Amino acid sequence: MERILEIARNLGEKHEQVVPITLFVAVLCFCLVIGHLLEENRWVNESITALIIGCVIGTIVLLISKGKSSHILRFDEELFFIYLLPPIIFNAGFQVKKKQFFHNFFTIMLFGVIGVLISSSIITTGSWLLFPKFNFVGLTPRDYLGIGTIFSSTDTVCTLQVLHQEETPLLYSLVFGEGVVNDATSVVLFNAVQKLDVNKVNGRTAVHVLLSFLYLFSASTALGIAAGLLTAYVLRGLYFGRHSSVREIALMVLMAYLSYMLAELFELSGILTVFFSGIFMSHYAWHNVTDSSRITTRHVFAMMSFIAETFIFLYVGMDALDIEKWRMSKLSIWDSIGVYSSVMFLIMLGRAAFVFPLSALSNCLNRTSTRSSTITFKHQIVIWWAGLMRGAVSIALAFKQFTHYGVPLDPVNATMVTTTVIVVLFSTIVFGFLTKPLVSYLLPHHHNTSNIDREPSIAKENMTLPLLSFEESAAENLLRAKDSLSMLMERPVYTIHSFWRRFDDAYMRPIFGGPQSDQPSQ
Amino acid sequence: MERILEIARNLGEKHEQVVPITLFVAVLCFCLVIGHLLEENRWVNESITALIIGCVIGTIVLLISKGKSSHILRFDEELFFIYLLPPIIFNAGFQVKKKQFFHNFFTIMLFGVIGVLISSSIITTGSWLLFPKFNFVGLTPRDYLGIGTIFSSTDTVCTLQVLHQEETPLLYSLVFGEGVVNDATSVVLFNAVQKLDVNKVNGRTAVHVLLSFLYLFSASTALGIAAGLLTAYVLRGLYFGRHSSVREIALMVLMAYLSYMLAELFELSGILTVFFSGIFMSHYAWHNVTDSSRITTRHVFAMMSFIAETFIFLYVGMDALDIEKWRMSKLSIWDSIGVYSSVMFLIMLGRAAFVFPLSALSNCLNRTSTRSSTITFKHQIVIWWAGLMRGAVSIALAFKQFTHYGVPLDPVNATMVTTTVIVVLFSTIVFGFLTKPLVSYLLPHHHNTSNIDREPSIAKENMTLPLLSFEESAAENLLRAKDSLSMLMERPVYTIHSFWRRFDDAYMRPIFGGPQSDQPSQ
Repeated sequence: MERILEIARNLGEKHEQVVPITLFVAVLCFCLVIGHLLEENRWVNESITALIIGCVIGTIVLLISKGKSSHILRFDEELFFIYLLPPIIFNAGFQVKKKQFFHNFFTIMLFGVIGVLISSSIITTGSWLLFPKFNFVGLTPRDYLGIGTIFSSTDTVCTLQVLHQEETPLLYSLVFGEGVVNDATSVVLFNAVQKLDVNKVNGRTAVHVLLSFLYLFSASTALGIAAGLLTAYVLRGLYFGRHSSVREIALMVLMAYLSYMLAELFELSGILTVFFSGIFMSHYAWHNVTDSSRITTRHVFAMMSFIAETFIFLYVGMDALDIEKWRMSKLSIWDSIGVYSSVMFLIMLGRAAFVFPLSALSNCLNRTSTRSSTITFKHQIVIWWAGLMRGAVSIALAFKQFTHYGVPLDPVNATMVTTTVIVVLFSTIVFGFLTKPLVSYLLPHHHNTSNIDREPSIAKENMTLPLLSFEESAAENLLRAKDSLSMLMERPVYTIHSFWRRFDDAYMRPIFGGPQSDQPSQ
Repeated sequence: MERILEIARNLGEKHEQVVPITLFVAVLCFCLVIGHLLEENRWVNESITALIIGCVIGTIVLLISKGKSSHILRFDEELFFIYLLPPIIFNAGFQVKKKQFFHNFFTIMLFGVIGVLISSSIITTGSWLLFPKFNFVGLTPRDYLGIGTIFSSTDTVCTLQVLHQEETPLLYSLVFGEGVVNDATSVVLFNAVQKLDVNKVNGRTAVHVLLSFLYLFSASTALGIAAGLLTAYVLRGLYFGRHSSVREIALMVLMAYLSYMLAELFELSGILTVFFSGIFMSHYAWHNVTDSSRITTRHVFAMMSFIAETFIFLYVGMDALDIEKWRMSKLSIWDSIGVYSSVMFLIMLGRAAFVFPLSALSNCLNRTSTRSSTITFKHQIVIWWAGLMRGAVSIALAFKQFTHYGVPLDPVNATMVTTTVIVVLFSTIVFGFLTKPLVSYLLPHHHNTSNIDREPSIAKENMTLPLLSFEESAAENLLRAKDSLSMLMERPVYTIHSFWRRFDDAYMRPIFGGPQSDQPSQ
């Protein structure tokens, strides 16, 4: 009899998992179809669609459960950090156009690393000054530092759907590259801040955060590169494709995930690790597999990333209607609006504070190169705007900082969670809708997708990349090597890149795989 | 201060998940590489490799944890039924050669459905008679019924790695088809038995089980077919590939999973549902997507299935060393060996009891067809042998019946779990090793992989399929239609198949997609 009861209980437990998973998968399918139907409509993008559908489903769940809950699944930041984030970031690294990315590496790093440091210090200071003005008190110094990093991670999906890689290669690569590096930096900085002993804040604290940040950054990158190279080496050495493509694909997927989990295990930044493992896998390992594995990996990583992103935005949409959090927050409506507005203001200010100065710095360092490498003022505005949207990473970090398994512990934390949700919703929907008109206004050539318009930009790009061209004789190479030192002084960024390309051709590709220098790199 | 403690606790909790996942993924990668290196070795297959590696890792974990545990992850039959089983079964349906499968549909169903019913009643009766002889008492009637179904689900991976689709098409399709249908039937029967009220066993019980089984079988199949057709229809109607292949692939993956979860939700058999949704997706939906999506889906489903299978065998290997279960079991060593041997004997007997009679029946029904459709005695022995291995499904069902979240509740249950693990290990490793010599002995032509040897079998096959050929004029078709009725009497199986092919061409393919009749079906 006991056994029968137990089986009945098991069944009940089973349904506890089966019902939400079924519903969520059904909603995901629905989202996918709607997203496809709205594809032609450039105003609405995937994120906005998922957010809105999430809100609608949240309302329905809220009505059905009679105000009890608006969720299908309980948010678990574990779910996010262990299962949803790795595919998104890995795919970003895997699909990035490496030529452009490395070409603009220095500028991207400036924006992605120094930019986040500037932006998060401004947001931390600003919120510390502004929040008490709206009767919002009770946050610890650690919370303020956390807020700085939470609201410094951007979501550039929206802008990328409007920009085009072929038309504005520099802008696209800057916005995309910054978006990824910025996410990674925010998480690294967030973890560095979390480890900080806030009870003893003194002059050495800043140094400590910086050192901790540098350690996390370099160790994570090294681990990612090692994982990517090891995969490439194994795939090349054992030639898996001889027997089955399935094993190659499985090995790439598992190694990518392993690198992320190892980084998490060693308390490094899994995001950075998996991003670099993605870059190195697509640069080396991808060339060692069969043709069908190449096609499959490209699509599979994109698909996993797509599902994970949709999942997150759906969740955020549902979470916006979580009545419990709203009830828990003790702020009056006007004070709340004050808090939201000040966060939005600080985000805009923090971003302006680094985009314009750092662009000037980058232009200065690239002063000898031709016009196409210069970031014009209009471009700077687009870069600034592109980084105003806040997305999945902000939500996940906010849940990590202010909730315990998705449930805020006190009114102050509840207010911060609702603030994050509102900022993400507002910035994604409102700024997202405004992006297209802004880009069309600033870059009017943008919509002429004729070949006449495209060719100049490609030609221009080639002119600026004489050092990167592979069609050069050995003699020329030698001659050029002599000039390297003087070039390093004049054009530091390009020359380092050129050294890397030669090193890659001479040593890395023969060992780890990849097209030889007479073939164009992908 | 409380917050800091909480963060520390969160970190601890995080590591509780991160460490096992990292280890398991690392072991999976290792398994993959070893599996690749042993590919040339036909004696050892994937399952055996994973099992042995699992045992080794289990020993290491046991030594490190000083006899406390041999697991990296705690077994959760939820994990198995919600995440690992669906991809395996879906892939089986998706990759099955439908022409051969439907051609031999009747025989496969005979083996897979009637066979399991015969086998499980023999095993149930046999264990009920034999177990008490080894002082093993305390099992309920429901347990005995469960044992029958648990040990009726085969694992044919081993034999399939030795047989070749081109050389012995009939045998391959029978063994493969039976393997899949048999898994599904076992699970359906298991669920039917679980719902049974064993306290009131009477004459109507058998009828009740049968009705419940028929309901589960037909409803699950219908749901799977509906899901497959819906996906095909949506993909065809909306033409996703126009914008992105990623959405098509995501939709297929999600719909497949949704069909499984829906079946579980309605307490049907997810296995059957997802198997048929796989068949219908590859028959219709697969033809409505872009070329790269076709390649990707083929590989992606195979990869997921491969990872899930390896995962399960690794786990079983580790579980074999779980000292707790061994200690819990109260049987003496000789009695235990008696129980194991009687289960093995019953498995062999139960399988013999249906393979030989049903083969004779199938031969009888196909009496007018040419020699190649006849199941020779040697073939019958191979089919019998191929189904002696027990695998993942047996383990999962045993855990479902005899444990509560991987922990057996009493000595009797512990004995049954260890018995299942031993039977799976023994049958997979010992029978697995012996399969190749047996097949080479019985089918000596098997190793001549020259074209001369292959062609006749293909030619023969074509001779036996005059009704299935598409290169026939309309007049011939008309003429043939008149003969249909008499044919139905003479060759019932082929005639039904032929009707289906014509229906498919005339109505299904134009609506749901697929190559038109002048192209060969894949």
